[in-house]
Amino acid sequence: MTAQGQSPGRWVRARLGYELRDEALFVTALTHRSAGQPHNERLEFLGDGVLNMLVAEHLYREFPMAAEGDLSRLRAWLVSAPPLAEIAAQLGLGEELRMGSGELKTGGFRRESILADALEAVIGAVYLDGGLGAAGGVVSQLFAQRLACLPDPQELKDPKTRLQEYLQSRALALPTYEVVATSGEVHAQTFWVRCEAAALALAATGQGLSRRRAEQEAAGLVLKAASGVKGAGND
Amino acid sequence: MTAQGQSPGRWVRARLGYELRDEALFVTALTHRSAGQPHNERLEFLGDGVLNMLVAEHLYREFPMAAEGDLSRLRAWLVSAPPLAEIAAQLGLGEELRMGSGELKTGGFRRESILADALEAVIGAVYLDGGLGAAGGVVSQLFAQRLACLPDPQELKDPKTRLQEYLQSRALALPTYEVVATSGEVHAQTFWVRCEAAALALAATGQGLSRRRAEQEAAGLVLKAASGVKGAGND
Repeated sequence: MTAQGQSPGRWVRARLGYELRDEALFVTALTHRSAGQPHNERLEFLGDGVLNMLVAEHLYREFPMAAEGDLSRLRAWLVSAPPLAEIAAQLGLGEELRMGSGELKTGGFRRESILADALEAVIGAVYLDGGLGAAGGVVSQLFAQRLACLPDPQELKDPKTRLQEYLQSRALALPTYEVVATSGEVHAQTFWVRCEAAALALAATGQGLSRRRAEQEAAGLVLKAASGVKGAGND
Repeated sequence: MTAQGQSPGRWVRARLGYELRDEALFVTALTHRSAGQPHNERLEFLGDGVLNMLVAEHLYREFPMAAEGDLSRLRAWLVSAPPLAEIAAQLGLGEELRMGSGELKTGGFRRESILADALEAVIGAVYLDGGLGAAGGVVSQLFAQRLACLPDPQELKDPKTRLQEYLQSRALALPTYEVVATSGEVHAQTFWVRCEAAALALAATGQGLSRRRAEQEAAGLVLKAASGVKGAGND
């Protein structure tokens, strides 16, 4: 156990602007499993569901014309570990986290997954403490900046999909993918895949620990070349 | 368009026991994309979030001692397509669905994913129409039977995990996996993997379109043999 996190209640009031009732819930939310029971994993499970739903509802209402695929990609982007961990860091959540000394020594309070999970646990605690309205208020506030400047959902598509759509929108032939080399044992193979967009006279080879990853890298390289050559960037 | 689904309002009142306000929402929820706009994909996106959260909350409250991993496995099992489609079929949802004639002819109203998606859309519509309490009431009723007899979360683990835990709990050596054959082009390979649990004097070969699937099949066969031999079944 650590000297960190002396007053979860004060932190919640000051940083989330939320007037909590049950302080014990927030102590649990801010306790990593390395510090023993009760820790925040169950609250993280609940908070993940609450956050997903609130973000889904926000996007549904905010973008009445958006297709389901775009809404899904935006939600996945918003609730992924990097933005969650960033928000947690901005709130100084790492300094409030209770952790075992091992995790502390190795800097666990700065680790992305630990911060993201703890933020979800805090959201779960607000939901239990104050209901959906309270959780909605906290989430709106925490995500305000990101919700105000969402990326173009098209840019969140994976490179293979984007390359295919780029070519289709120009009525050009689809790219081909070919495994040109593999190395290593079957259990830990590396793949090299060549992506060729003959219609653009472009080709590139990507590398990855799965064929799929190598394909994605290769497609991304072809897209990049296409955008350099012909302004394909945000098409 | 079809002659199906003459009165979504009547169906919702009769089968969900929910007194709806905005009938148009439920018409949309019961319209497959093959029947044109507005269709149910956006409501499905919202309803998926609502259902996930409600099931998460139910499990969180109902099983105060369960670990996060068990809660996650139970939730994934409850909200997967097969049980959703089964519930939808019991409600006669397929007969209420508006579909394009192509989908109708090919029996789309019986297809698992279409039924599961439409049920999520209906849950999204109830949430918008009546709030979280209303959605919670409907979900509790729809899932009552399944929530009353949940499987052992251990049984929801994949075969490799279960075999590993089976051996670890007996302080036996872990199994080995070996690719013994592959066939087909790199892009569409079939794998044969041999799993050997030397400590049990058991081995089996599994087959699959990925190494991982072949390993899982092999592990499952070894587990089955172990349970036959030594009563390892629900260990």
